[in-house]
Amino acid sequence: MDEDRPKSPLATPGPVPKAVVSRLSLYLRELQHLVQHGHQTTSSTQLGRVLGFTDAQVRKDLAYFGQFGYPGIGYRCEELIAAIKQILGTDRSWPVALIGLGNLGRALLRYRGFGRQGFCVVAAFDIDASIVGTEIEQIPVFHLDQLAEVIDERQIRLAIIAVPSPEAQGVATLLVNAGVEGILNFAPVTISLPPTVKHVEVDLAIELEQLSFAVVNRGEKT
Amino acid sequence: MDEDRPKSPLATPGPVPKAVVSRLSLYLRELQHLVQHGHQTTSSTQLGRVLGFTDAQVRKDLAYFGQFGYPGIGYRCEELIAAIKQILGTDRSWPVALIGLGNLGRALLRYRGFGRQGFCVVAAFDIDASIVGTEIEQIPVFHLDQLAEVIDERQIRLAIIAVPSPEAQGVATLLVNAGVEGILNFAPVTISLPPTVKHVEVDLAIELEQLSFAVVNRGEKT
Repeated sequence: MDEDRPKSPLATPGPVPKAVVSRLSLYLRELQHLVQHGHQTTSSTQLGRVLGFTDAQVRKDLAYFGQFGYPGIGYRCEELIAAIKQILGTDRSWPVALIGLGNLGRALLRYRGFGRQGFCVVAAFDIDASIVGTEIEQIPVFHLDQLAEVIDERQIRLAIIAVPSPEAQGVATLLVNAGVEGILNFAPVTISLPPTVKHVEVDLAIELEQLSFAVVNRGEKT
Repeated sequence: MDEDRPKSPLATPGPVPKAVVSRLSLYLRELQHLVQHGHQTTSSTQLGRVLGFTDAQVRKDLAYFGQFGYPGIGYRCEELIAAIKQILGTDRSWPVALIGLGNLGRALLRYRGFGRQGFCVVAAFDIDASIVGTEIEQIPVFHLDQLAEVIDERQIRLAIIAVPSPEAQGVATLLVNAGVEGILNFAPVTISLPPTVKHVEVDLAIELEQLSFAVVNRGEKT
């Protein structure tokens, strides 16, 4: 019987569209911004307006996960922040491994946006003997050969790949074998992984392409 | 009459969903990868498989923009690459301004993925007197005060913001006033812009949140 199934954290069955999950992150940022500026409550209209979505879109997106609004009040910011963090899994702290300490890797080590959302780079890996064994931004740098051992010891489930493209697949395979469950890949190349390992590809040029598309097709939409 | 309207580059009227435009970039990457490995043709099944989409999804996405396949052949890689580049507006080279030369800005200057897709950072801006007037990665560094002048001179339409969050809105406003049409914002803060200026916010932690969501909800989807 249906009642016997363990309760899903999702209000609706079935997978949530990826675009909705992306928007959850945007709502979370905006709510955090509102709280920083002293707001205690907000509305779907206000949340949507800043982000360029309709109020209906905001309500529909949140409805995937439950009922969050109060009649005559709207959303309580702190409460909705806590709910979204729980949905996204960022109500806890995630230790993260970073592989590759070139320019991008170093920038990522210094990127404050990760820590603010509960992602904490606890170990960095490279093959450059001049930095292995040192600390950069107070993060210990290990040799790639120590990957499996350190990931096991520090119970790391997420990893960021910031190595040159030709090395990305090899590093990804090492990470999978070490038991990592999710990989964020900054190398501008598609990597193949077993379906059990989640991954997100970050190709920074894609964002610029989205922008050039929007600029070129601007006339079409107005 | 409808026939009198100028021809739209889009096969279907109305705005194309953003998610479809994102996937175009992924198809483009995969096609470029196939060509590098000597393939001349491909199929919706092959294109979709590597990227984790169904063949139906690939065909539906491409159908927004026209008819690209050939019966019994599939897609001609080079032809589809050219078509997608035209749609995305990357069949030309885009001069880009980069504002902020901290760690992230410097990493972006060195990021080879941009140039590969036709985006060329031609001017960088900062307020640090020790680097203004120099070149970094062969890109001239100007003072922020010269923004309007340089953007006009070099006919720059796209800009990347890589300044600290508190400075992002101010820089965005300067860029808008200088006539920039599209802004890629790496500062982890939402900026407000007039609706005529397109912008894409890159919050690197969002990608990690998408990953933690996928890892936490892994059990739900299988």
